[in-house]
Amino acid sequence: MTYLKECTVSVFGLGLLGASLAWKLTSDGSVRGVAGWSRSPETVRRALDAGMITHACVSAEECAALGDILILAVPIRSMEETSRNIAAAVRPDAFAVFDLASTKTEVGRSLASVWGPRYAGFHPMAGKEKGGIGNADPELFLGSVCAIVPFPETSPSVLALAEELASALGGRSLRTTPVEHDAVTACISHFPVLVAASLSLLAERERERHPLLPLLAAGGFRDTTRVAGGPAWLGADMASTNGAQVRRLAEEYKKVLDELLSAAPEELETLLARASASRGSILAAKEAWSREERK
Amino acid sequence: MTYLKECTVSVFGLGLLGASLAWKLTSDGSVRGVAGWSRSPETVRRALDAGMITHACVSAEECAALGDILILAVPIRSMEETSRNIAAAVRPDAFAVFDLASTKTEVGRSLASVWGPRYAGFHPMAGKEKGGIGNADPELFLGSVCAIVPFPETSPSVLALAEELASALGGRSLRTTPVEHDAVTACISHFPVLVAASLSLLAERERERHPLLPLLAAGGFRDTTRVAGGPAWLGADMASTNGAQVRRLAEEYKKVLDELLSAAPEELETLLARASASRGSILAAKEAWSREERK
Repeated sequence: MTYLKECTVSVFGLGLLGASLAWKLTSDGSVRGVAGWSRSPETVRRALDAGMITHACVSAEECAALGDILILAVPIRSMEETSRNIAAAVRPDAFAVFDLASTKTEVGRSLASVWGPRYAGFHPMAGKEKGGIGNADPELFLGSVCAIVPFPETSPSVLALAEELASALGGRSLRTTPVEHDAVTACISHFPVLVAASLSLLAERERERHPLLPLLAAGGFRDTTRVAGGPAWLGADMASTNGAQVRRLAEEYKKVLDELLSAAPEELETLLARASASRGSILAAKEAWSREERK
Repeated sequence: MTYLKECTVSVFGLGLLGASLAWKLTSDGSVRGVAGWSRSPETVRRALDAGMITHACVSAEECAALGDILILAVPIRSMEETSRNIAAAVRPDAFAVFDLASTKTEVGRSLASVWGPRYAGFHPMAGKEKGGIGNADPELFLGSVCAIVPFPETSPSVLALAEELASALGGRSLRTTPVEHDAVTACISHFPVLVAASLSLLAERERERHPLLPLLAAGGFRDTTRVAGGPAWLGADMASTNGAQVRRLAEEYKKVLDELLSAAPEELETLLARASASRGSILAAKEAWSREERK
Protein backbone atom coordinates (compact mmCIF):
# COMPACT_ATOMS: atom_id res chain seq x y z
CA MET A 1 0.00 0.00 0.00
CA THR A 2 1.08 3.53 -0.75
CA TYR A 3 -0.26 6.49 1.20
CA LEU A 4 -0.78 9.94 -0.19
CA LYS A 5 1.32 11.51 2.58
CA GLU A 6 4.44 9.68 1.43
CA CYS A 7 4.01 10.57 -2.24
CA THR A 8 5.41 13.24 -4.48
CA VAL A 9 2.68 14.35 -6.84
CA SER A 10 3.67 15.52 -10.32
CA VAL A 11 1.21 17.87 -11.98
CA PHE A 12 1.36 18.35 -15.77
CA GLY A 13 -0.40 21.53 -16.81
CA LEU A 14 -0.89 24.46 -14.41
CA GLY A 15 -4.16 25.96 -15.61
CA LEU A 16 -7.13 26.53 -13.30
CA LEU A 17 -7.54 22.85 -12.32
CA GLY A 18 -3.89 21.77 -12.23
CA ALA A 19 -2.73 24.84 -10.29
CA SER A 20 -5.64 24.70 -7.81
CA LEU A 21 -5.03 21.00 -7.13
CA ALA A 22 -1.29 21.52 -6.69
CA TRP A 23 -1.87 24.48 -4.41
CA LYS A 24 -4.30 22.61 -2.18
CA LEU A 25 -1.94 19.64 -1.73
CA THR A 26 1.08 21.90 -1.12
CA SER A 27 -0.62 24.22 1.33
CA ASP A 28 -2.18 21.42 3.39
CA GLY A 29 1.02 19.41 3.44
CA SER A 30 -1.08 16.39 2.55
CA VAL A 31 1.68 15.00 0.28
CA ARG A 32 5.49 14.90 0.50
CA GLY A 33 5.89 17.34 -2.37
CA VAL A 34 4.31 18.69 -5.52
CA ALA A 35 6.30 18.94 -8.76
CA GLY A 36 4.81 21.13 -11.45
CA TRP A 37 5.33 21.56 -15.15
CA SER A 38 3.64 23.74 -17.76
CA ARG A 39 4.46 24.43 -21.40
CA SER A 40 5.03 28.01 -20.28
CA PRO A 41 8.16 28.42 -18.06
CA GLU A 42 6.65 31.71 -16.81
CA THR A 43 3.62 29.79 -15.44
CA VAL A 44 5.90 27.31 -13.65
CA ARG A 45 7.82 30.17 -12.03
CA ARG A 46 4.59 31.83 -10.99
CA ALA A 47 3.34 28.57 -9.40
CA LEU A 48 6.59 28.20 -7.43
CA ASP A 49 6.62 31.86 -6.32
CA ALA A 50 3.01 31.60 -5.11
CA GLY A 51 3.78 28.43 -3.14
CA MET A 52 1.49 26.28 -5.28
CA ILE A 53 4.23 23.73 -6.02
CA THR A 54 7.40 22.67 -4.21
CA HIS A 55 9.45 21.73 -7.32
CA ALA A 56 9.50 23.75 -10.53
CA CYS A 57 10.30 21.56 -13.52
CA VAL A 58 11.84 22.78 -16.77
CA SER A 59 10.62 19.77 -18.74
CA ALA A 60 7.76 17.31 -18.63
CA GLU A 61 10.32 14.52 -18.40
CA GLU A 62 11.91 16.05 -15.28
CA CYS A 63 8.45 16.34 -13.74
CA ALA A 64 7.64 12.73 -14.68
CA ALA A 65 10.84 11.42 -13.06
CA LEU A 66 9.95 13.01 -9.70
CA GLY A 67 6.40 11.68 -9.26
CA ASP A 68 4.96 8.79 -7.30
CA ILE A 69 1.57 9.97 -8.56
CA LEU A 70 1.18 11.68 -11.93
CA ILE A 71 -1.71 14.04 -12.59
CA LEU A 72 -2.45 15.07 -16.15
CA ALA A 73 -4.08 18.49 -16.16
CA VAL A 74 -3.29 19.50 -19.74
CA PRO A 75 -6.05 20.15 -22.32
CA ILE A 76 -7.96 16.98 -23.23
CA ARG A 77 -6.60 16.90 -26.75
CA SER A 78 -3.00 16.90 -25.40
CA MET A 79 -3.48 14.15 -22.79
CA GLU A 80 -2.36 11.26 -24.96
CA GLU A 81 0.57 13.10 -26.53
CA THR A 82 1.83 14.28 -23.12
CA SER A 83 1.53 10.70 -21.83
CA ARG A 84 3.58 9.28 -24.70
CA ASN A 85 6.21 12.00 -24.27
CA ILE A 86 6.76 11.29 -20.57
CA ALA A 87 6.23 7.51 -20.51
CA ALA A 88 9.95 6.68 -20.77
CA ALA A 89 10.87 9.16 -18.01
CA VAL A 90 8.39 7.85 -15.43
CA ARG A 91 9.93 5.86 -12.57
CA PRO A 92 9.14 2.12 -12.67
CA ASP A 93 7.79 2.37 -9.10
CA ALA A 94 5.50 5.33 -9.89
CA PHE A 95 2.21 4.31 -8.46
CA ALA A 96 -0.73 5.99 -10.17
CA VAL A 97 -1.67 8.19 -13.11
CA PHE A 98 -4.86 10.28 -13.06
CA ASP A 99 -6.23 12.65 -15.68
CA LEU A 100 -8.51 15.59 -14.86
CA ALA A 101 -10.25 15.59 -18.25
CA SER A 102 -13.99 16.36 -18.31
CA THR A 103 -14.66 13.51 -20.74
CA LYS A 104 -13.54 9.95 -20.11
CA THR A 105 -14.49 7.41 -22.77
CA GLU A 106 -12.13 8.33 -25.62
CA VAL A 107 -9.35 9.87 -23.58
CA GLY A 108 -9.52 7.12 -20.95
CA ARG A 109 -9.22 4.39 -23.53
CA SER A 110 -6.07 5.93 -24.95
CA LEU A 111 -4.57 6.65 -21.51
CA ALA A 112 -5.34 3.12 -20.27
CA SER A 113 -3.44 1.80 -23.27
CA VAL A 114 -0.37 3.87 -22.28
CA TRP A 115 -0.49 3.41 -18.48
CA GLY A 116 -2.24 0.07 -17.90
CA PRO A 117 -3.18 -0.81 -14.27
CA ARG A 118 -1.72 2.47 -12.90
CA TYR A 119 -4.35 4.59 -14.65
CA ALA A 120 -7.80 5.68 -13.51
CA GLY A 121 -9.92 8.61 -14.63
CA PHE A 122 -10.37 11.37 -12.04
CA HIS A 123 -12.75 14.25 -12.69
CA PRO A 124 -13.27 16.89 -10.01
CA MET A 125 -16.55 18.60 -10.98
CA ALA A 126 -15.46 22.13 -10.23
CA GLY A 127 -14.58 25.15 -12.30
CA LYS A 128 -14.87 28.87 -12.74
CA GLU A 129 -16.03 31.08 -15.55
CA LYS A 130 -12.45 32.19 -16.21
CA GLY A 131 -9.62 29.69 -16.37
CA GLY A 132 -5.85 29.97 -15.99
CA ILE A 133 -3.41 29.99 -13.08
CA GLY A 134 -4.47 33.56 -12.26
CA ASN A 135 -7.84 32.20 -11.11
CA ALA A 136 -6.43 29.21 -9.21
CA ASP A 137 -7.83 28.66 -5.73
CA PRO A 138 -6.78 25.95 -3.27
CA GLU A 139 -10.40 25.69 -2.10
CA LEU A 140 -11.80 25.24 -5.63
CA PHE A 141 -12.69 21.58 -4.98
CA LEU A 142 -14.23 22.05 -1.53
CA GLY A 143 -17.54 20.19 -1.46
CA SER A 144 -17.26 19.17 -5.10
CA VAL A 145 -17.87 15.73 -6.52
CA CYS A 146 -14.81 13.88 -7.81
CA ALA A 147 -15.86 11.26 -10.34
CA ILE A 148 -13.54 8.26 -10.20
CA VAL A 149 -13.59 6.22 -13.37
CA PRO A 150 -11.95 2.78 -13.34
CA PHE A 151 -10.97 1.03 -16.56
CA PRO A 152 -10.84 -2.77 -16.89
CA GLU A 153 -7.08 -2.78 -16.21
CA THR A 154 -7.14 -0.36 -13.24
CA SER A 155 -5.59 -1.73 -10.05
CA PRO A 156 -7.89 -1.57 -6.97
CA SER A 157 -5.17 0.15 -4.93
CA VAL A 158 -5.07 2.95 -7.52
CA LEU A 159 -8.80 3.47 -6.96
CA ALA A 160 -8.28 3.59 -3.20
CA LEU A 161 -5.61 6.24 -3.74
CA ALA A 162 -7.96 8.23 -5.99
CA GLU A 163 -10.47 8.28 -3.14
CA GLU A 164 -7.79 9.48 -0.75
CA LEU A 165 -6.92 12.23 -3.22
CA ALA A 166 -10.57 13.32 -3.50
CA SER A 167 -10.73 13.66 0.30
CA ALA A 168 -7.46 15.59 0.40
CA LEU A 169 -8.96 18.08 -2.07
CA GLY A 170 -12.02 18.52 0.16
CA GLY A 171 -14.25 16.75 -2.36
CA ARG A 172 -16.37 13.63 -2.30
CA SER A 173 -15.65 10.69 -4.55
CA LEU A 174 -18.18 8.91 -6.71
CA ARG A 175 -17.35 5.85 -8.80
CA THR A 176 -18.83 5.57 -12.24
CA THR A 177 -18.11 4.03 -15.63
CA PRO A 178 -16.65 5.92 -18.60
CA VAL A 179 -19.90 5.64 -20.55
CA GLU A 180 -22.12 6.69 -17.67
CA HIS A 181 -19.77 9.56 -16.82
CA ASP A 182 -19.82 10.84 -20.38
CA ALA A 183 -23.58 10.46 -20.86
CA VAL A 184 -24.34 12.34 -17.65
CA THR A 185 -21.72 15.08 -18.04
CA ALA A 186 -22.86 15.57 -21.66
CA CYS A 187 -26.36 16.20 -20.30
CA ILE A 188 -25.54 18.44 -17.34
CA SER A 189 -22.40 20.16 -18.57
CA HIS A 190 -21.11 19.71 -22.15
CA PHE A 191 -24.34 20.02 -24.12
CA PRO A 192 -25.50 23.00 -21.97
CA VAL A 193 -22.37 24.85 -23.18
CA LEU A 194 -23.66 24.51 -26.76
CA VAL A 195 -27.18 25.50 -25.67
CA ALA A 196 -25.83 28.63 -23.98
CA ALA A 197 -23.49 29.47 -26.86
CA SER A 198 -26.32 29.13 -29.40
CA LEU A 199 -28.42 31.55 -27.34
CA SER A 200 -25.53 34.04 -27.22
CA LEU A 201 -25.04 33.82 -31.00
CA LEU A 202 -28.80 34.21 -31.52
CA ALA A 203 -28.76 37.35 -29.36
CA GLU A 204 -25.83 38.71 -31.37
CA ARG A 205 -27.90 38.43 -34.58
CA GLU A 206 -31.01 39.88 -32.97
CA ARG A 207 -28.97 42.78 -31.62
CA GLU A 208 -28.06 43.75 -35.20
CA ARG A 209 -31.78 44.20 -35.86
CA HIS A 210 -32.56 45.81 -32.49
CA PRO A 211 -29.57 47.69 -31.07
CA LEU A 212 -31.33 48.28 -27.73
CA LEU A 213 -31.30 44.54 -27.00
CA PRO A 214 -28.57 44.74 -24.33
CA LEU A 215 -30.53 47.33 -22.34
CA LEU A 216 -33.43 44.91 -21.90
CA ALA A 217 -31.23 41.92 -21.06
CA ALA A 218 -31.44 41.03 -17.38
CA GLY A 219 -30.56 38.20 -15.03
CA GLY A 220 -32.34 35.54 -17.09
CA PHE A 221 -30.16 36.04 -20.14
CA ARG A 222 -27.02 36.34 -18.01
CA ASP A 223 -27.65 33.07 -16.14
CA THR A 224 -28.94 31.02 -19.06
CA THR A 225 -25.82 31.89 -21.07
CA ARG A 226 -23.28 31.86 -18.22
CA VAL A 227 -21.50 28.68 -19.30
CA ALA A 228 -20.96 30.20 -22.77
CA GLY A 229 -18.59 32.65 -21.07
CA GLY A 230 -16.02 29.95 -20.25
CA PRO A 231 -12.85 29.24 -22.25
CA ALA A 232 -13.67 28.36 -25.87
CA TRP A 233 -10.89 25.77 -26.15
CA LEU A 234 -12.34 23.89 -23.18
CA GLY A 235 -15.88 23.87 -24.56
CA ALA A 236 -14.59 22.67 -27.93
CA ASP A 237 -12.49 19.97 -26.22
CA MET A 238 -15.47 18.73 -24.21
CA ALA A 239 -17.98 18.75 -27.04
CA SER A 240 -15.64 17.12 -29.52
CA THR A 241 -14.18 14.40 -27.28
CA ASN A 242 -17.73 13.61 -26.09
CA GLY A 243 -19.29 14.13 -29.50
CA ALA A 244 -21.40 10.98 -29.72
CA GLN A 245 -23.19 11.63 -26.42
CA VAL A 246 -23.60 15.33 -27.15
CA ARG A 247 -25.17 14.63 -30.55
CA ARG A 248 -27.48 11.97 -29.12
CA LEU A 249 -28.73 14.41 -26.47
CA ALA A 250 -29.04 17.23 -29.01
CA GLU A 251 -31.43 15.12 -31.08
CA GLU A 252 -33.60 14.40 -28.03
CA TYR A 253 -33.38 18.02 -26.97
CA LYS A 254 -34.67 19.34 -30.27
CA LYS A 255 -37.66 17.01 -30.02
CA VAL A 256 -38.47 18.25 -26.51
CA LEU A 257 -38.13 21.86 -27.63
CA ASP A 258 -40.43 21.25 -30.60
CA GLU A 259 -42.97 19.70 -28.25
CA LEU A 260 -42.95 22.88 -26.13
CA LEU A 261 -43.16 25.11 -29.21
CA SER A 262 -46.19 23.37 -30.61
CA ALA A 263 -48.06 22.97 -27.30
CA ALA A 264 -51.33 24.81 -26.64
CA PRO A 265 -51.13 27.25 -23.68
CA GLU A 266 -52.59 24.84 -21.07
CA GLU A 267 -50.45 21.97 -22.33
CA LEU A 268 -47.38 24.23 -22.27
CA GLU A 269 -48.13 25.19 -18.69
CA THR A 270 -48.24 21.49 -17.73
CA LEU A 271 -44.93 20.83 -19.48
CA LEU A 272 -43.27 23.86 -17.88
CA ALA A 273 -44.51 22.76 -14.46
CA ARG A 274 -42.98 19.33 -15.08
CA ALA A 275 -39.70 20.93 -16.19
CA SER A 276 -39.61 23.05 -13.05
CA ALA A 277 -40.33 20.00 -10.87
CA SER A 278 -37.62 17.93 -12.61
CA ARG A 279 -35.08 20.66 -12.12
CA GLY A 280 -36.09 21.08 -8.47
CA SER A 281 -35.87 17.35 -7.86
CA ILE A 282 -32.40 17.09 -9.42
CA LEU A 283 -31.06 20.00 -7.37
CA ALA A 284 -32.70 18.66 -4.20
CA ALA A 285 -31.20 15.19 -4.68
CA LYS A 286 -27.76 16.74 -5.07
CA GLU A 287 -28.29 18.90 -2.00
CA ALA A 288 -29.46 15.93 0.11
CA TRP A 289 -26.43 13.90 -0.92
CA SER A 290 -24.10 16.78 -0.04
CA ARG A 291 -25.73 17.22 3.37
CA GLU A 292 -25.39 13.52 4.05
CA GLU A 293 -21.66 13.83 3.36
CA ARG A 294 -21.23 16.73 5.81
CA LYS A 295 -22.72 14.73 8.70
CA MET B 1 -50.73 68.00 -16.22
CA THR B 2 -51.20 65.44 -13.49
CA TYR B 3 -48.41 64.63 -11.06
CA LEU B 4 -47.82 61.29 -9.48
CA LYS B 5 -47.82 62.75 -5.97
CA GLU B 6 -51.45 63.84 -6.30
CA CYS B 7 -52.68 60.51 -7.65
CA THR B 8 -54.28 57.47 -6.14
CA VAL B 9 -52.88 54.41 -7.84
CA SER B 10 -55.16 51.37 -8.21
CA VAL B 11 -53.34 48.07 -8.54
CA PHE B 12 -55.21 45.06 -9.98
CA GLY B 13 -53.48 41.82 -9.07
CA LEU B 14 -51.18 41.52 -6.03
CA GLY B 15 -48.67 38.92 -7.15
CA LEU B 16 -44.93 39.53 -7.09
CA LEU B 17 -44.99 42.53 -9.45
CA GLY B 18 -48.26 44.15 -8.38
CA ALA B 19 -47.53 43.83 -4.66
CA SER B 20 -43.91 45.02 -5.00
CA LEU B 21 -44.99 48.06 -7.02
CA ALA B 22 -47.79 48.93 -4.57
CA TRP B 23 -45.45 48.50 -1.62
CA LYS B 24 -42.76 50.76 -3.08
CA LEU B 25 -45.25 53.57 -3.84
CA THR B 26 -46.92 53.25 -0.42
CA SER B 27 -43.73 53.13 1.60
CA ASP B 28 -42.09 56.05 -0.18
CA GLY B 29 -45.24 58.17 -0.02
CA SER B 30 -44.66 59.00 -3.67
CA VAL B 31 -48.43 58.91 -4.39
CA ARG B 32 -51.52 60.03 -2.47
CA GLY B 33 -52.66 56.46 -1.92
CA VAL B 34 -52.56 52.92 -3.27
CA ALA B 35 -55.76 50.89 -3.69
CA GLY B 36 -55.30 47.18 -4.17
CA TRP B 37 -57.45 44.34 -5.43
CA SER B 38 -56.78 40.66 -5.93
CA ARG B 39 -59.09 37.76 -6.81
CA SER B 40 -58.15 36.38 -3.40
CA PRO B 41 -59.58 38.43 -0.47
CA GLU B 42 -56.89 36.85 1.74
CA THR B 43 -54.17 38.38 -0.47
CA VAL B 44 -55.81 41.83 -0.26
CA ARG B 45 -55.91 41.56 3.55
CA ARG B 46 -52.29 40.49 3.63
CA ALA B 47 -51.25 43.46 1.47
CA LEU B 48 -53.09 45.88 3.76
CA ASP B 49 -51.69 44.30 6.94
CA ALA B 50 -48.15 44.51 5.56
CA GLY B 51 -48.59 48.17 4.63
CA MET B 52 -48.24 47.49 0.91
CA ILE B 53 -51.52 49.28 0.09
CA THR B 54 -53.53 52.01 1.76
CA HIS B 55 -57.02 50.87 0.58
CA ALA B 56 -58.13 47.24 0.50
CA CYS B 57 -60.81 46.70 -2.14
CA VAL B 58 -63.40 43.92 -2.10
CA SER B 59 -64.08 44.17 -5.81
CA ALA B 60 -62.22 45.17 -8.97
CA GLU B 61 -64.95 47.76 -9.58
CA GLU B 62 -64.36 49.37 -6.18
CA CYS B 63 -60.64 49.51 -6.92
CA ALA B 64 -61.31 50.98 -10.37
CA ALA B 65 -63.50 53.74 -8.96
CA LEU B 66 -60.70 54.92 -6.61
CA GLY B 67 -57.87 55.29 -9.08
CA ASP B 68 -56.38 58.22 -10.94
CA ILE B 69 -53.89 55.77 -12.36
CA LEU B 70 -54.78 52.10 -12.97
CA ILE B 71 -52.13 49.43 -13.04
CA LEU B 72 -53.01 46.02 -14.41
CA ALA B 73 -50.82 43.40 -12.77
CA VAL B 74 -53.01 40.35 -13.39
CA PRO B 75 -51.82 37.41 -15.55
CA ILE B 76 -51.43 38.39 -19.22
CA ARG B 77 -54.31 36.20 -20.32
CA SER B 78 -56.66 38.03 -17.87
CA MET B 79 -55.66 41.59 -18.82
CA GLU B 80 -58.36 42.15 -21.40
CA GLU B 81 -61.13 40.51 -19.38
CA THR B 82 -60.21 42.51 -16.26
CA SER B 83 -60.21 45.71 -18.34
CA ARG B 84 -63.67 45.03 -19.76
CA ASN B 85 -64.99 44.20 -16.28
CA ILE B 86 -63.82 47.45 -14.73
CA ALA B 87 -64.27 49.84 -17.68
CA ALA B 88 -67.70 51.06 -16.56
CA ALA B 89 -66.53 51.66 -12.96
CA VAL B 90 -63.49 53.77 -13.87
CA ARG B 91 -63.85 57.49 -13.16
CA PRO B 92 -64.15 59.65 -16.28
CA ASP B 93 -61.21 61.75 -15.06
CA ALA B 94 -58.97 58.75 -14.44
CA PHE B 95 -55.76 59.64 -16.09
CA ALA B 96 -53.72 56.64 -17.16
CA VAL B 97 -53.84 52.86 -17.48
CA PHE B 98 -50.65 50.79 -17.53
CA ASP B 99 -50.21 47.05 -17.79
CA LEU B 100 -47.20 45.19 -16.41
CA ALA B 101 -47.41 42.32 -18.93
CA SER B 102 -44.13 40.89 -20.25
CA THR B 103 -45.46 40.85 -23.82
CA LYS B 104 -46.95 43.88 -25.52
CA THR B 105 -48.07 43.39 -29.11
CA GLU B 106 -51.22 41.28 -28.67
CA VAL B 107 -52.18 42.42 -25.19
CA GLY B 108 -51.40 46.08 -25.98
CA ARG B 109 -53.58 46.04 -29.07
CA SER B 110 -56.56 44.77 -27.07
CA LEU B 111 -55.94 47.13 -24.12
CA ALA B 112 -55.55 50.14 -26.44
CA SER B 113 -58.94 49.29 -27.92
CA VAL B 114 -60.50 49.38 -24.42
CA TRP B 115 -58.64 52.38 -22.97
CA GLY B 116 -57.70 54.56 -25.94
CA PRO B 117 -55.34 57.53 -25.25
CA ARG B 118 -55.09 56.73 -21.52
CA TYR B 119 -53.24 53.47 -22.16
CA ALA B 120 -49.53 52.77 -22.52
CA GLY B 121 -47.58 49.56 -22.01
CA PHE B 122 -45.28 49.53 -18.99
CA HIS B 123 -42.92 46.64 -18.41
CA PRO B 124 -40.51 46.72 -15.48
CA MET B 125 -37.84 44.13 -16.33
CA ALA B 126 -37.52 42.64 -12.87
CA GLY B 127 -38.54 39.38 -11.27
CA LYS B 128 -37.61 36.58 -8.95
CA GLU B 129 -37.48 32.83 -9.30
CA LYS B 130 -40.53 32.49 -7.05
CA GLY B 131 -43.60 34.66 -7.53
CA GLY B 132 -46.50 35.64 -5.29
CA ILE B 133 -47.10 38.29 -2.66
CA GLY B 134 -44.95 36.32 -0.22
CA ASN B 135 -41.89 37.24 -2.28
CA ALA B 136 -42.85 40.88 -2.82
CA ASP B 137 -40.10 43.43 -2.22
CA PRO B 138 -40.43 47.22 -2.46
CA GLU B 139 -36.88 47.38 -3.86
CA LEU B 140 -37.55 44.80 -6.60
CA PHE B 141 -37.39 47.44 -9.36
CA LEU B 142 -34.30 49.26 -8.10
CA GLY B 143 -31.94 49.74 -11.04
CA SER B 144 -34.22 47.85 -13.41
CA VAL B 145 -35.23 48.92 -16.89
CA CYS B 146 -38.88 49.90 -17.32
CA ALA B 147 -39.87 49.53 -20.96
CA ILE B 148 -42.47 52.13 -21.90
CA VAL B 149 -44.48 51.17 -24.94
CA PRO B 150 -46.67 53.82 -26.60
CA PHE B 151 -49.51 52.85 -28.93
CA PRO B 152 -50.71 55.12 -31.78
CA GLU B 153 -53.52 56.48 -29.58
CA THR B 154 -51.42 57.05 -26.43
CA SER B 155 -51.47 60.60 -25.08
CA PRO B 156 -47.98 62.20 -24.61
CA SER B 157 -48.85 63.18 -21.03
CA VAL B 158 -49.53 59.52 -20.23
CA LEU B 159 -46.01 58.71 -21.43
CA ALA B 160 -44.56 61.45 -19.25
CA LEU B 161 -46.42 59.97 -16.28
CA ALA B 162 -45.07 56.51 -17.12
CA GLU B 163 -41.57 57.95 -16.93
CA GLU B 164 -42.34 59.51 -13.58
CA LEU B 165 -43.62 56.14 -12.37
CA ALA B 166 -40.44 54.37 -13.53
CA SER B 167 -38.36 56.86 -11.53
CA ALA B 168 -40.57 56.45 -8.47
CA LEU B 169 -39.93 52.69 -8.62
CA GLY B 170 -36.17 53.29 -8.73
CA GLY B 171 -35.97 52.09 -12.33
CA ARG B 172 -34.92 53.66 -15.60
CA SER B 173 -37.34 54.12 -18.44
CA LEU B 174 -36.70 53.13 -22.03
CA ARG B 175 -39.18 53.81 -24.84
CA THR B 176 -39.69 51.15 -27.43
CA THR B 177 -42.34 49.88 -29.86
CA PRO B 178 -44.56 46.85 -29.22
CA VAL B 179 -42.86 44.85 -31.98
CA GLU B 180 -39.34 45.72 -30.92
CA HIS B 181 -40.21 45.03 -27.28
CA ASP B 182 -41.60 41.60 -28.11
CA ALA B 183 -38.77 40.63 -30.47
CA VAL B 184 -36.12 41.54 -27.93
CA THR B 185 -37.83 40.09 -24.86
CA ALA B 186 -38.53 36.89 -26.81
CA CYS B 187 -34.79 36.63 -27.41
CA ILE B 188 -33.48 37.49 -23.96
CA SER B 189 -36.31 36.24 -21.79
CA HIS B 190 -39.25 34.26 -23.22
CA PHE B 191 -37.43 31.85 -25.54
CA PRO B 192 -34.70 31.21 -22.91
CA VAL B 193 -37.46 29.86 -20.63
CA LEU B 194 -38.23 27.19 -23.26
CA VAL B 195 -34.51 26.52 -23.74
CA ALA B 196 -34.06 26.02 -19.99
CA ALA B 197 -37.24 23.94 -19.63
CA SER B 198 -36.18 21.66 -22.51
CA LEU B 199 -32.85 21.07 -20.80
CA SER B 200 -34.61 20.23 -17.52
CA LEU B 201 -36.93 17.77 -19.27
CA LEU B 202 -33.96 16.23 -21.09
CA ALA B 203 -32.16 15.78 -17.75
CA GLU B 204 -35.29 14.14 -16.32
CA ARG B 205 -35.21 11.51 -19.08
CA GLU B 206 -31.48 10.98 -18.79
CA ARG B 207 -31.82 10.55 -15.03
CA GLU B 208 -34.11 7.56 -15.64
CA ARG B 209 -31.22 5.89 -17.46
CA HIS B 210 -28.53 7.11 -15.04
CA PRO B 211 -29.88 7.64 -11.52
CA LEU B 212 -26.63 9.23 -10.34
CA LEU B 213 -27.18 12.20 -12.67
CA PRO B 214 -28.10 14.64 -9.88
CA LEU B 215 -24.87 13.93 -8.01
CA LEU B 216 -22.80 15.11 -10.96
CA ALA B 217 -24.94 18.20 -11.62
CA ALA B 218 -23.16 21.37 -10.58
CA GLY B 219 -23.40 25.13 -11.05
CA GLY B 220 -23.55 24.95 -14.85
CA PHE B 221 -26.77 22.94 -14.90
CA ARG B 222 -28.28 25.03 -12.10
CA ASP B 223 -27.62 28.34 -13.85
CA THR B 224 -28.46 27.26 -17.40
CA THR B 225 -31.86 26.00 -16.22
CA ARG B 226 -32.59 28.68 -13.60
CA VAL B 227 -35.37 30.40 -15.55
CA ALA B 228 -37.17 27.04 -15.88
CA GLY B 229 -37.73 27.23 -12.10
CA GLY B 230 -40.13 30.18 -12.39
CA PRO B 231 -43.95 29.95 -12.32
CA ALA B 232 -45.24 27.70 -15.14
CA TRP B 233 -48.34 29.85 -15.77
CA LEU B 234 -46.10 32.87 -16.38
CA GLY B 235 -43.83 31.04 -18.81
CA ALA B 236 -46.85 29.72 -20.68
CA ASP B 237 -48.41 33.19 -20.77
CA MET B 238 -45.24 34.75 -22.15
CA ALA B 239 -44.51 32.09 -24.74
CA SER B 240 -48.08 31.93 -25.98
CA THR B 241 -48.85 35.66 -26.13
CA ASN B 242 -45.49 36.19 -27.87
CA GLY B 243 -45.72 33.01 -29.93
CA ALA B 244 -44.81 34.39 -33.35
CA GLN B 245 -41.54 35.94 -32.15
CA VAL B 246 -40.68 32.89 -30.03
CA ARG B 247 -41.20 30.52 -32.97
CA ARG B 248 -39.20 32.74 -35.34
CA LEU B 249 -36.27 32.76 -32.89
CA ALA B 250 -36.58 29.02 -32.24
CA GLU B 251 -36.09 28.32 -35.95
CA GLU B 252 -32.95 30.48 -36.05
CA TYR B 253 -31.74 28.95 -32.81
CA LYS B 254 -31.97 25.40 -34.10
CA LYS B 255 -29.89 26.38 -37.14
CA VAL B 256 -27.21 27.92 -34.93
CA LEU B 257 -27.18 24.83 -32.69
CA ASP B 258 -26.85 22.55 -35.72
CA GLU B 259 -23.93 24.64 -36.94
CA LEU B 260 -22.16 24.11 -33.60
CA LEU B 261 -22.98 20.39 -33.58
CA SER B 262 -21.53 19.79 -37.03
CA ALA B 263 -18.42 21.99 -36.62
CA ALA B 264 -14.93 20.48 -36.58
CA PRO B 265 -13.07 21.08 -33.27
CA GLU B 266 -11.12 24.18 -34.44
CA GLU B 267 -14.22 25.64 -36.08
CA LEU B 268 -16.22 24.96 -32.91
CA GLU B 269 -13.60 26.74 -30.84
CA THR B 270 -13.91 29.79 -33.11
CA LEU B 271 -17.71 29.77 -32.81
CA LEU B 272 -17.59 29.36 -29.02
CA ALA B 273 -15.12 32.23 -28.77
CA ARG B 274 -17.54 34.38 -30.79
CA ALA B 275 -20.45 33.33 -28.58
CA SER B 276 -18.48 34.24 -25.46
CA ALA B 277 -17.52 37.62 -26.96
CA SER B 278 -21.15 38.36 -27.98
CA ARG B 279 -22.39 37.55 -24.51
CA GLY B 280 -19.65 39.67 -22.94
CA SER B 281 -20.41 42.59 -25.23
CA ILE B 282 -24.17 42.46 -24.47
CA LEU B 283 -23.58 42.37 -20.70
CA ALA B 284 -20.96 45.13 -20.94
CA ALA B 285 -23.29 47.40 -22.94
CA LYS B 286 -25.99 46.93 -20.31
CA GLU B 287 -23.53 47.63 -17.52
CA ALA B 288 -22.22 50.81 -19.23
CA TRP B 289 -25.76 52.09 -19.71
CA SER B 290 -26.58 51.42 -16.04
CA ARG B 291 -23.42 53.22 -14.89
CA GLU B 292 -24.28 56.20 -17.07
CA GLU B 293 -27.67 56.37 -15.32
CA ARG B 294 -26.10 56.41 -11.86
CA LYS B 295 -23.95 59.45 -12.70
